[in-house]
Amino acid sequence: MAEIETGKLAGVMRRGDVLAAQCPSRKILMHVTSQWGILVLMALMEGTHRFSELRRKIGGVSEKMLAQTLQQLEQDGFILRVSYPVVPPHVEYSLTPLGDGIGRHVEALTDWIEHNLPTIVEAQAKQPARQ
Amino acid sequence: MAEIETGKLAGVMRRGDVLAAQCPSRKILMHVTSQWGILVLMALMEGTHRFSELRRKIGGVSEKMLAQTLQQLEQDGFILRVSYPVVPPHVEYSLTPLGDGIGRHVEALTDWIEHNLPTIVEAQAKQPARQ
Repeated sequence: MAEIETGKLAGVMRRGDVLAAQCPSRKILMHVTSQWGILVLMALMEGTHRFSELRRKIGGVSEKMLAQTLQQLEQDGFILRVSYPVVPPHVEYSLTPLGDGIGRHVEALTDWIEHNLPTIVEAQAKQPARQ
Repeated sequence: MAEIETGKLAGVMRRGDVLAAQCPSRKILMHVTSQWGILVLMALMEGTHRFSELRRKIGGVSEKMLAQTLQQLEQDGFILRVSYPVVPPHVEYSLTPLGDGIGRHVEALTDWIEHNLPTIVEAQAKQPARQ
């Protein structure tokens, strides 16, 4: 943040600019579009989940990466973490209204890829091999 | 791919499933939503660019990462690379119709983040510090 002058920061804060390296929106974009960030948001679009349910739903995610991703998205205000004081511990994760807002766009993006996968694979096959 | 049975692959190819670790859509999602992938798609939504123009527009990208990202998105069929046989070399990059399709979703996602940045920063400030 030291690299943005005060006047410029005020401008940035009215609206971010992800193409500017120092804009805070760049970091949020990175959290949301990290490999596991996208998949966590997608899974939570279907409703509240426990940690173990998310782990099962998201193929290939490790316990450590899932915990780290959830914590990051919680800090950005996208995820609500509710811990029930029972034994064994019971923790539930859901999207905040802000998380639902970004989740819709993430879902639209992944939907597009899933739907267009056959066309993309065909396009890949047509590419000449690079020397 | 060795981990997907033939019957299942046919199902996958009618429509991808990014939550499945072995689905080819997962790799495409990673290319499109890599830090530089997103920003390259966004920049090219504004039209054809030369390498040096992209480099200037995308704050913080290195020559190596930009070249690698462009090559990856070209291989996926999202970017058209046209090299003019002149001295010094003149290379232009633009989106294919497929790239324009995914670009619209990437743009909607980044637009949302840029617009909602003040709200997100406010939400971040309200988070209790983690022990």
